[in-house]
Amino acid sequence: MQTPDHDLTEHCIDSQTIASGGMLTVKRDQVRLPNGHTSQREYVTHPGAVLVVPILPNGNIVLEKQFRYPLHQVFIELPAGKIDAGEDTLVTGKRELEEETGYTASHWVSLGYQHPCIGYSNEVIHTYLAHGLIAGEHFRDDDESLIVFEESLANCLSMTQAGEITDGKTIIALFLTEKYLALNPNLLQSE
Amino acid sequence: MQTPDHDLTEHCIDSQTIASGGMLTVKRDQVRLPNGHTSQREYVTHPGAVLVVPILPNGNIVLEKQFRYPLHQVFIELPAGKIDAGEDTLVTGKRELEEETGYTASHWVSLGYQHPCIGYSNEVIHTYLAHGLIAGEHFRDDDESLIVFEESLANCLSMTQAGEITDGKTIIALFLTEKYLALNPNLLQSE
Repeated sequence: MQTPDHDLTEHCIDSQTIASGGMLTVKRDQVRLPNGHTSQREYVTHPGAVLVVPILPNGNIVLEKQFRYPLHQVFIELPAGKIDAGEDTLVTGKRELEEETGYTASHWVSLGYQHPCIGYSNEVIHTYLAHGLIAGEHFRDDDESLIVFEESLANCLSMTQAGEITDGKTIIALFLTEKYLALNPNLLQSE
Repeated sequence: MQTPDHDLTEHCIDSQTIASGGMLTVKRDQVRLPNGHTSQREYVTHPGAVLVVPILPNGNIVLEKQFRYPLHQVFIELPAGKIDAGEDTLVTGKRELEEETGYTASHWVSLGYQHPCIGYSNEVIHTYLAHGLIAGEHFRDDDESLIVFEESLANCLSMTQAGEITDGKTIIALFLTEKYLALNPNLLQSE
C-alpha cells in the first residue's frame, strides 16, 4: 500500500486577487503541478485566528452562542477572533476572551494549532486553554450579538457527539482539553 | 453569567456574487442585525463534502499525503471529497474512497457531521467510518497528486497531539473514531 514519498509541491506561475476590499480576500493562482501540467487554485487569504478554552474554577467551560450568517444558524462556540497585524497570538487570545466574555485569566496553556479549511483557505487557528478566570466587563463589537454561558466539559463532549456542537474548531479544542485535563487532573485545585 | 436566549438572527436584505466561475463562489450580503443596524457578510458557498475514516482489517487507518496550495504545505489527511449535485452523502463517501485509494468497503457507519469554517463558508462535512475494506484500483483526478499510506490509530492520535496532523476535519474524525472504537471494541473481529 505504501508508496515512496515524492515531491508533491505545486509552484505558483501567476497570482491574481479576484475579490477584496470587504471582509474576504480571494486569490486565483495559476500553478504548475508535479506532473508538469498547469492548473488553477482559488483560496481565501486569512490573517489567522486564536481560539480560547476558558475553564472556570468550578471546572465549567465558558461558551458562546452566535448566529453565523453563512449557515443561517446559531452555533455553540468557544471564544475566538482574528489576529491583528503583527500581534502575538497570546495577546490575541487575551484580547478576544476579554472583549467577548469579560473574563481575564491568570494562566494560559498552548494546545497547539489547527488548519480548519486547507482546501480553500490559508487560515490557521492557535488554541489556548485559559484558567484562573476573573469576571469583568466585556467589550463586544457592535455587530457581534452573542450570548455567553457556561457548561461542564462532560456536557460539552456529549453535545459534540450528539451533533449539538458541530463547529469544527470548537470540537477539536474540547477534545484537546479533555486529553489535557486527563494528564493534568489537579489543574484547578488551587483556584 | 448566563443571559436569557434572545433572537440572534441576521436577515438578508440584498445578496450579490462577488466571485464565481472558477472553483470558489463568494457572496456578499447586506444584512439586518438583531439590533436593527445593517452590516455586510461575505462567505464562500460550498456544496458540502464527505470524509471517510477507512479502517483496515489489521486496525490501521488509510491516510493520504496531499499538497494543499493555500498553505503551500503537504498535509496528512483522511480521504474526502465534494458532494456532487443531488448525490447522497454515502454515495459520495464510497466514490471518493475508491477514487482516491482504490478501496471499497462492506460496512459504513455515520459519525455525524462538522462545520469546518462557520465564519466565512457554508461548508458541511459528513463523516463516515468504513470497514470491511477490499483493495482495488484507484481513479485519482489528474491534478490530485497524493500519496496513500496506512498508520495505526494510536500513532494517528499521537501525531495529532504532536502537531504533525493539523487538518481540522481529520483531527475531528480521528477523535470520533477513537470514541466509537472504545464503545465497539469488537468492530473488526470478523474481518
